[in-house]
Amino acid sequence: MLRSCATHLRTLRSGSVEVWRSFSSEKVTHKDYAVPNPSWSKDLRFLFDQFMKKCEDGSWKRLSSYRKIPPEHLKDFQTQFIDPSYSKEEYMLKSQLFTRSFEDGMGFEYVVFCNDVEKKVVCLFQGGPFLQGVPGFLHGGAAASIIDVALGKCAARAGGIVMTANLNINYKRPIPLCSVSVINSQIDKIEGRKLFLSCNFQSSDEKISYADATGLFIKLDPKKRLT
Amino acid sequence: MLRSCATHLRTLRSGSVEVWRSFSSEKVTHKDYAVPNPSWSKDLRFLFDQFMKKCEDGSWKRLSSYRKIPPEHLKDFQTQFIDPSYSKEEYMLKSQLFTRSFEDGMGFEYVVFCNDVEKKVVCLFQGGPFLQGVPGFLHGGAAASIIDVALGKCAARAGGIVMTANLNINYKRPIPLCSVSVINSQIDKIEGRKLFLSCNFQSSDEKISYADATGLFIKLDPKKRLT
Repeated sequence: MLRSCATHLRTLRSGSVEVWRSFSSEKVTHKDYAVPNPSWSKDLRFLFDQFMKKCEDGSWKRLSSYRKIPPEHLKDFQTQFIDPSYSKEEYMLKSQLFTRSFEDGMGFEYVVFCNDVEKKVVCLFQGGPFLQGVPGFLHGGAAASIIDVALGKCAARAGGIVMTANLNINYKRPIPLCSVSVINSQIDKIEGRKLFLSCNFQSSDEKISYADATGLFIKLDPKKRLT
Repeated sequence: MLRSCATHLRTLRSGSVEVWRSFSSEKVTHKDYAVPNPSWSKDLRFLFDQFMKKCEDGSWKRLSSYRKIPPEHLKDFQTQFIDPSYSKEEYMLKSQLFTRSFEDGMGFEYVVFCNDVEKKVVCLFQGGPFLQGVPGFLHGGAAASIIDVALGKCAARAGGIVMTANLNINYKRPIPLCSVSVINSQIDKIEGRKLFLSCNFQSSDEKISYADATGLFIKLDPKKRLT
């Protein structure tokens, strides 16, 4: 629902950043999940390599993605709900970003690339066997989830911390489980704090259109509390 | 995306049904996840008990829910995609229903009750710490997923095997992680194979409206192939 657009992380080595847990002095290293792992199919690796080449001249960028959002990403964000049944430490240890909370290959495998000049974002996606709806096909909720990620990342590039206000999805064809697809997102219009976006969800060869969607995202003032 | 409406399962004992794996003669027992487990909060148990009382006169029914869809639910369903990289057996062992693919308490904890006369469905939901978006709140995709479940179950009661064609969600307030909420769904209109539904997503005390949504579902002919 909310995403941050932070680029001020101190990179230690490829694929990881050094952060500090907010509740202790213990140092942890966050793993970047937006890189190939052994579960990635040939199709996903091929598309990944193509976009990495586009990154070489600086026009496109690969966006990092973490299971636990590094505190630096939300350093100005004033609101956070902690369920009363948890201590803050326990909560920080248990909670994970939804779309990164599966074991490698079982859930959402994806990487997002962006082109800030063209205001475009491309999400390469492979949905694992734990995202099943009817046998053999992706669950409608899993499709909605990766659409929310793709649109939200696009909105966050322009709007900083944004929140989904509307998601309108047209499902056109069932999406085979474990297949690779591409979600192209773009900003159509900005009106004050409102960002209007759209996307299409296609097979990796662009021959099948699985879904299209629009999204309305609201730019938040991180210094104001949400609740 | 697709759901079956089967009521012909042979119940062995409370919370489980006997089914046969389609690829072998090995008998397995499917666990019903739509019953309380130790992760359920006091609020969720309280609402569950209230609805179980409504079931006593037969006006409401609790719907069972499985991690692996029992083959009987889809016995007439003619289409299934198996990724070429898996054998059928391997695929059957690995794949799981998306919204039941988490360990108890970490993901989607929910139970659905229906009233077929009033064409209403109520989903009681508790979103665990693996469904996080911004720290402390439910991910927009996780909210969309449980809305798809709530609307889809409602459509399936009237339409048999149905498929999501459109999902339009208005997010109004951020949903605290680990809190309990209630999604009330109803069928607004049926036009041939099209089922038009709507729902509201509220806090357990009904004081906060988190979201509302509409859904269009298409009744499928299970004897026709999807792809």
